[in-house]
Amino acid sequence: MSTQATSKVINLKDRTGITTEPLPGSEKFYLKGSRDDLLVPFRRINLTDTPNADPSLPGTPNEPVVVYDTSGLYTDPTAKIDIEAGLPLIRQKWIEERGDCEQLEAFSSHYTREQDAQDFDIPLFEHRRLPRKAKPGKNVSQMHYARQGIITPEMEYIAIRESMGREALAQRGELPDDMEHYITAEYVRKEVAEGRAIIPANINHPESEPMIIGRNFLVKINANIGNSATTSSIEEEVEKMVWSTRWGGDTIMDLSTGKHIHQTREWIIRNSPVPVGTVPLYQALEKVNGIAEDLTWEVYRDTLIEQAEQGVDYFTIHAGVRLAHIPLTVNRTTGIVSRGGSIMAAWCLAHHEESFLYTHFEDICEIMKAYDISFSLGDGLRPGCQADANDEAQFAELKTLGELTQIAWKHDVQVMIEGPGHVPMHKIKENMDLQLEWCHEAPFYTLGPLVTDIAPGYDHITSGIGAAMIGWYGTAMLCYVTPKEHLGLPNKDDVKTGIITYKIAAHAADLGKGHPGAQIRDDAISKARFEFRWEDQFNIGFDPDTARAYHDETLPQPKAKVAHFCSMCGPKFCSMKISHDVKAAFAEKSQEFKEAGSKIYHEV
Amino acid sequence: MSTQATSKVINLKDRTGITTEPLPGSEKFYLKGSRDDLLVPFRRINLTDTPNADPSLPGTPNEPVVVYDTSGLYTDPTAKIDIEAGLPLIRQKWIEERGDCEQLEAFSSHYTREQDAQDFDIPLFEHRRLPRKAKPGKNVSQMHYARQGIITPEMEYIAIRESMGREALAQRGELPDDMEHYITAEYVRKEVAEGRAIIPANINHPESEPMIIGRNFLVKINANIGNSATTSSIEEEVEKMVWSTRWGGDTIMDLSTGKHIHQTREWIIRNSPVPVGTVPLYQALEKVNGIAEDLTWEVYRDTLIEQAEQGVDYFTIHAGVRLAHIPLTVNRTTGIVSRGGSIMAAWCLAHHEESFLYTHFEDICEIMKAYDISFSLGDGLRPGCQADANDEAQFAELKTLGELTQIAWKHDVQVMIEGPGHVPMHKIKENMDLQLEWCHEAPFYTLGPLVTDIAPGYDHITSGIGAAMIGWYGTAMLCYVTPKEHLGLPNKDDVKTGIITYKIAAHAADLGKGHPGAQIRDDAISKARFEFRWEDQFNIGFDPDTARAYHDETLPQPKAKVAHFCSMCGPKFCSMKISHDVKAAFAEKSQEFKEAGSKIYHEV
Repeated sequence: MSTQATSKVINLKDRTGITTEPLPGSEKFYLKGSRDDLLVPFRRINLTDTPNADPSLPGTPNEPVVVYDTSGLYTDPTAKIDIEAGLPLIRQKWIEERGDCEQLEAFSSHYTREQDAQDFDIPLFEHRRLPRKAKPGKNVSQMHYARQGIITPEMEYIAIRESMGREALAQRGELPDDMEHYITAEYVRKEVAEGRAIIPANINHPESEPMIIGRNFLVKINANIGNSATTSSIEEEVEKMVWSTRWGGDTIMDLSTGKHIHQTREWIIRNSPVPVGTVPLYQALEKVNGIAEDLTWEVYRDTLIEQAEQGVDYFTIHAGVRLAHIPLTVNRTTGIVSRGGSIMAAWCLAHHEESFLYTHFEDICEIMKAYDISFSLGDGLRPGCQADANDEAQFAELKTLGELTQIAWKHDVQVMIEGPGHVPMHKIKENMDLQLEWCHEAPFYTLGPLVTDIAPGYDHITSGIGAAMIGWYGTAMLCYVTPKEHLGLPNKDDVKTGIITYKIAAHAADLGKGHPGAQIRDDAISKARFEFRWEDQFNIGFDPDTARAYHDETLPQPKAKVAHFCSMCGPKFCSMKISHDVKAAFAEKSQEFKEAGSKIYHEV
Repeated sequence: MSTQATSKVINLKDRTGITTEPLPGSEKFYLKGSRDDLLVPFRRINLTDTPNADPSLPGTPNEPVVVYDTSGLYTDPTAKIDIEAGLPLIRQKWIEERGDCEQLEAFSSHYTREQDAQDFDIPLFEHRRLPRKAKPGKNVSQMHYARQGIITPEMEYIAIRESMGREALAQRGELPDDMEHYITAEYVRKEVAEGRAIIPANINHPESEPMIIGRNFLVKINANIGNSATTSSIEEEVEKMVWSTRWGGDTIMDLSTGKHIHQTREWIIRNSPVPVGTVPLYQALEKVNGIAEDLTWEVYRDTLIEQAEQGVDYFTIHAGVRLAHIPLTVNRTTGIVSRGGSIMAAWCLAHHEESFLYTHFEDICEIMKAYDISFSLGDGLRPGCQADANDEAQFAELKTLGELTQIAWKHDVQVMIEGPGHVPMHKIKENMDLQLEWCHEAPFYTLGPLVTDIAPGYDHITSGIGAAMIGWYGTAMLCYVTPKEHLGLPNKDDVKTGIITYKIAAHAADLGKGHPGAQIRDDAISKARFEFRWEDQFNIGFDPDTARAYHDETLPQPKAKVAHFCSMCGPKFCSMKISHDVKAAFAEKSQEFKEAGSKIYHEV
């Protein structure tokens, strides 16, 4: 059903270039939890055998590598992908069963109703549903359930996902003895109850596959997409969303600021297997024609409700930019570099009033808990350059975010805290330490930080360095930065480069933190590398396509894929080849060698 | 003059694509030291004016940004570049004046003489000089001079270079009062004397512009070039050398393993403004047809002398791979991944003897001090994957490198120590700490380290993260890694990507360490960014060409270069634009605001 004007519905499917095949060498599979409709997706990377030294004998099989999978149905060849219908509603039954929300008879937002009455010359999502909302007096947040001791299907799903299936095996009594450390559903519940982790899961986004953001779980990454006034279309944004999740984006933020924000978002959410975040202030500003001082609480509130009923899972809200903080930014090298922060500062100054986001914070909490939207408390005063890092303005806001966290938690509303920005290496840890202390261990969600300002065109790298470090120190989610940062809007290639760079940072952080099982994939690729299993080396990596293309640039022949060397060193200088010879020679002379070798060694 | 067969001299110049123009917006200039032939190069990035709010009034000029310049004469439009003649011999007079070396009447290496007697179908460098060598009983190393209290012109040059000219100003009594912290020539001398820094400066490479590697100086980067059996030519290697220095390579290593290594190296050294390092073992192995067990001390020794007399500035010597260490590598996931390490391990095993590099170490020192070649003590047992990081094999070798350092220092021979490799973030600092302790603060020179193994195609990034961190912890030089690492031989684009990534890592480390003046360039680009001076933003960055191209991809119009927004956010959502309005509004209402603002602030 749909309440919107449908005369101009345009076939979007034929115009998108979304990718649907699985990644090379990979298969999707699902692990069932405690109920039949709880099916947790994984990606299995199948490996070739370790060749036998005697080629006439069979090789030794290698266990497939199982990895966390953010790509949704798009990489499942058995799934029928229909952008016009949207994804299946995997959480719908769980939401309904809880009996604490109801489907409304109409959209609550004035703006939505206004838009629905209009005709548009753009594709509209036809199979829209009426929104759900908590029944009066009810709170549908995952934190609320967690605090009552309830393990939701979402929590169980996450436990299986984060423990790479060990939780599902344990439920069935099939867990091997050597796998005693894993994440249980009860552990997920506890982390959410205590505010150390959030599950962004709007009841109006039942298509989303549950995931968690918290520093005791795998480090997550977010990809920003969205059009701007100068460029991009709906098709491109849907395509970018699918593309982002294909390469490992754990959430996406739709930061559209151009035309048709409402309609673009509908397409994105209905087709997104990952949580969607937004900055509602951007759309609110569009509604008042870009004039910050014309913003009102009423316009903003209607925007929150509009987006809540579409299914946005988390809202960036810059409620920490208070009137009194603005003087602290005046002598900065780059002033206020957050869009939301600068808009609110302009509003505060124009009205000479405290920010309405701050004064209406409890009203916002009421909306959040009626749909289960998580706060991403925006760092409107984050530093935009090395010179402004860790300054008074930044830390004054961070303290305010800590106060707001406690207010949100009073309402059982989930919270994460946004962080910088541009910060030199020696000042990164202070950010993490103060955030944990002042914001009571709510998850930290940072943009980089960029560890230098002087590399436009390479800010995925300047920020990837800071992101890996702050992830290791305890940041729960890293917001990607693309090579176009500071210069322009990213295209599809830039999005991929940003994602892969951030997968590297997040995984490096997981390794650094000693996350159980994180090193399995590293060990598998290293073994493949040492055994010259080129195809496996490509496929285990984050980007099999690029690895294969780089290899083939110098050695395109099929036989090079089984060669015991690469073009870097050539056959005679391949250290790994020589190392195998050394190993074999050592095995041969083992006894003789051990005696002499030990002797020499003890002389050292 | 030339002693080699010249019948086949081929015009190389017309076949190389070397780049000679200055970087955009930049000018080369020289600061004179205490003597007329001591001219230290710098790059001046000229900036546009800060526009006046009233466009009819003139803007405010911005000081040019002065940066360290590794690019040699190639970016000096007044210089005549002639690849066939080689670069001018800027250090020749300094070397001769010291009176402790002499020009030989013939090349000492058998191999060189053998090669010179042959005809080749490749371009040969025609204007070759006869080599210089220390007079009997003399030691021409910079460490030797330093320990006698002598400040060489090389040391003064470095002081001016590292202090961004402050040392030259101080000499002339022109140093402004606010610039009291800078690097003096005496400080350079002391660091070299105490082994904390090295000046790689073979007396047979008088073309090189003196530079220093030590943790109390700017962090340096090395670019590896060189052909392999499978690919590349002399022209390409010369081109890559010039290309590497253009983008900021502080030294290059010629790791050629294919044909005509000797002749390729001659072209590279004669045209290289930066120190050149090699791994002599690679060429020695070529001389015995790639059969490790056929290597002998005599072949190796002749190779050292051959390369010493060509002008190689530092030798990677894997003397720390001892027979007794080999058993420690047998159960590793990726065995021995250093080419030199695996060759020496194979040799030790085949002969069941201690490595000749270890047993002849003092003989090697004698050669090093006769030409002033620095040791780069190779980490032949560096880990090749996360699983092998910081293991017994690696640390056993590191301890041996510490012993060898003390032997080299006994000979007043300069030493740096090579380091890993593949290391997860939480194990990086231990590498630095143990290296400082065990190797007596000799400079550390690391490859990355890569903080994860699972991103082939992106190992410039996986390693750039580790490089920035270890640089911050105290590593003096970072060996770059290109996107082709583990997959193939880098092309020109890959070399540039590797260099820029490592410039980022090195600069981030300088910022993290609080190197005096390091933040000047960051502050300048950030100011340009805040003032919408797009051209300045491009030009101050590490790669003006890419930054400009990315900007123009979405906003190619010339007027976009003066626009007060970019395509990322468009005009209405530009935080910097709004931030300027906020700043202006704040200035206007300053008094009124301050009163109310302070009041509100104190309520927090």
